[in-house]
Amino acid sequence: MSTRLQEQVGLITDALEKSPESGASCLVESMSPAEISRVIESLPGDLRTPLWLQLPRLKKGEVLLELQGGLRKSLIKQTDEKELIACLSVMQMDELADLDDDLPMSVVNAMVKAMDVHRRERYERVKLYPDDVAGGLMDVDATAVRADVTFKAVLRYLRRLRQREGSLPEHLDSLMVIDRHNRFMGILPLSHLVSYDLSTIVGEVMSPDVVGITPLTPNTEVARIFEDHDLMSAPVMDDKGYLLGRITVDDVINVMRDQADREILGRAGLDQHEDMFAPVINSSVRRAVWLGINLLTAFLAAWVIGLFEGSIEKMVALAVLMPVVASMGGVAGSQTLTLVTRGMALDQISRRNIWKLAAHELTIGALNGLFWAGVVAAIAYYWFNDLMLGLVFGAAMLIVIFTGALVGTFIPLILKRMGIDPALAGGVVLTTATDAIGFFAFLGLATVMLF
Amino acid sequence: MSTRLQEQVGLITDALEKSPESGASCLVESMSPAEISRVIESLPGDLRTPLWLQLPRLKKGEVLLELQGGLRKSLIKQTDEKELIACLSVMQMDELADLDDDLPMSVVNAMVKAMDVHRRERYERVKLYPDDVAGGLMDVDATAVRADVTFKAVLRYLRRLRQREGSLPEHLDSLMVIDRHNRFMGILPLSHLVSYDLSTIVGEVMSPDVVGITPLTPNTEVARIFEDHDLMSAPVMDDKGYLLGRITVDDVINVMRDQADREILGRAGLDQHEDMFAPVINSSVRRAVWLGINLLTAFLAAWVIGLFEGSIEKMVALAVLMPVVASMGGVAGSQTLTLVTRGMALDQISRRNIWKLAAHELTIGALNGLFWAGVVAAIAYYWFNDLMLGLVFGAAMLIVIFTGALVGTFIPLILKRMGIDPALAGGVVLTTATDAIGFFAFLGLATVMLF
Repeated sequence: MSTRLQEQVGLITDALEKSPESGASCLVESMSPAEISRVIESLPGDLRTPLWLQLPRLKKGEVLLELQGGLRKSLIKQTDEKELIACLSVMQMDELADLDDDLPMSVVNAMVKAMDVHRRERYERVKLYPDDVAGGLMDVDATAVRADVTFKAVLRYLRRLRQREGSLPEHLDSLMVIDRHNRFMGILPLSHLVSYDLSTIVGEVMSPDVVGITPLTPNTEVARIFEDHDLMSAPVMDDKGYLLGRITVDDVINVMRDQADREILGRAGLDQHEDMFAPVINSSVRRAVWLGINLLTAFLAAWVIGLFEGSIEKMVALAVLMPVVASMGGVAGSQTLTLVTRGMALDQISRRNIWKLAAHELTIGALNGLFWAGVVAAIAYYWFNDLMLGLVFGAAMLIVIFTGALVGTFIPLILKRMGIDPALAGGVVLTTATDAIGFFAFLGLATVMLF
Repeated sequence: MSTRLQEQVGLITDALEKSPESGASCLVESMSPAEISRVIESLPGDLRTPLWLQLPRLKKGEVLLELQGGLRKSLIKQTDEKELIACLSVMQMDELADLDDDLPMSVVNAMVKAMDVHRRERYERVKLYPDDVAGGLMDVDATAVRADVTFKAVLRYLRRLRQREGSLPEHLDSLMVIDRHNRFMGILPLSHLVSYDLSTIVGEVMSPDVVGITPLTPNTEVARIFEDHDLMSAPVMDDKGYLLGRITVDDVINVMRDQADREILGRAGLDQHEDMFAPVINSSVRRAVWLGINLLTAFLAAWVIGLFEGSIEKMVALAVLMPVVASMGGVAGSQTLTLVTRGMALDQISRRNIWKLAAHELTIGALNGLFWAGVVAAIAYYWFNDLMLGLVFGAAMLIVIFTGALVGTFIPLILKRMGIDPALAGGVVLTTATDAIGFFAFLGLATVMLF
């Protein structure tokens, strides 16, 4: 791991601690907005605002965009409205649209009011769609040319466009080709434009679009399409074929990172935008919710154990061994759960193969169940010198590993049918089930067989 | 989620089941190699080979590259050597280098022998570096131009290059600018080339490189750099500034996906390349390893419980409540662990802020510990009508949630120092610790206070 960022954080911390008003700004000059946002997130609470206030206006908007939700809101609150408007007015429309839920209404209104007709129309087009679909991701400034013109005319057009706007749009690797009704026809890679004769007609060498992203295609699906086709950019069009905008791969990378963060943090009950140095009270309350859910499930397991108090009283070894059963069921189940959840995310599981997959997982469950049943039966027998206890322990182990596989296969399918994301909720549901089943199987079998 | 792929899998399954020799190949014609590989992975074992054998030669190499490790090896084994060589000879050098650990030596030797001097030299340059650093990721075919030429000369050069090679390299969004010693000087975006006058000199408008990727920069760091700077491609150069190659964003997307897969599957003890329909025996053995590790840790917890058999015998309620304590400690600890592990991956944790972070987490642990201690003490009191038991249960809850935060903060730091990836091993180590601490605190306190 690079420590370049850590060194920068160290230098900036020193500068800020020495004199909050100055010094740090030149340290962030060469950094990208994403890097600056990571620096701000790494700083403890009291140094964040001084650094934020020193950032150059040109970068503040994009830094806000990269910051985690809670921190973004708090820095917006600490910024003068006029300053905010000045920072945001240089942003692209799709970026602004991602940000404006966190902005004060008065700022949004002032900004919309100040836009010229052209910009306002583009802004409203982006705002039509939520953030988690292609429409919210796309840039409406797609550079488009007609199919019936020559490369010479295209180059002349691009030169004029650059002179007028100062530069061409960011991340331009290809041009969109349209007919005279603004209907999408194909894509013209810039690498064609620089390597064919000037007399070439656009329509002769353009490539057709094969991926068909509409404004309502979910972000995760857009990411998958970019990955499958190694795309750098792609057109977004409506179902009649009219070109609406363009998505570039840098947006897709953000989607992928968000998706991974959401899944990894979500499994621990953390918000995707959890901030390392959020105010302690806020963090405590957010985490308490997850602890509360877990407490309910833990008491459910405790209640199952409570059913067998009499048996435990007669044989304390049961209390010693019971967590082992529950834990092994949880691990076996989570292996299956993880595999099935991932297969679903990759769109690889359907009615065509779910039964074969279930059979595969249950066979593995049966094999591992039998193997570990034998192992633990032997251990329990030697530990407590009680053959029947060993047999009951082994049988419970077989049951819980096998049902772990069963439950792990079907929980994600059921959760998805219910509209719940299995990547987030699957683990809790699974553990609740395997704990209850494990305790019940072991203590129940013991009650029947041993006394 | 799209079901387009699922429909395709359905159609292909039907075609293969009807007649293994034909029909399916036209269904995959319009699919990208990545999509085809996902289709193959979705098919049960007996249909995979028939589909593989029907794939067009041009696509087979790239499909292999996208497939999961075990499946890739098995399909290579089922392919005639001559056919393999024909498929692979159309691949790029960096792709071939990623694949050749899985190829039979005789195939690799035959291919290297058949290469012309130019290709062999490029192949050997890529092979110098392992797969998990920039050198293994880069394409050595970077298109470079000199800084002192005009745009007109560059365009002439690119036209000739296209005529000679048939096309320009894939994903060409910019050219590398070098001096006459092949030393890197800057980047010329194609969007400049198409929007400035033909008389422009390359050196006047090129952008300097700011990111500095060397062949030994780790893949994960490369991904971070692309993300931070919204790059589409970047040069790789040695420490003397000589241009070695070029990394494009599609490679980076694969790195990000692999990283996320590795983390999510690794937490359940699954291999990154786990195949849904791998032979049952192979899957069982691989998963048994993780179950075995878990069994050891579970028996450690059982041993702790065993120390207090006498107390449990006197009061069975202890056995009923003890899993609740361990479970809450595990959840609280994993929240902290996840946050710290992620901060480390983002390079946001250093000696500068680790103590502030620890203080933050411990305060949260103390607050949530106190809160839930009160809640569970009340529940236990009402359930078992025993005030002292409630107090002991609450005290143990406070201890385990607080130590969960403590352990969750430092485990990832210690594991990383030991060279172990905390994202993979952190969870097991944490659960082992919180289980042992939870059982010990609760049963130990009970033994001292209640009898």
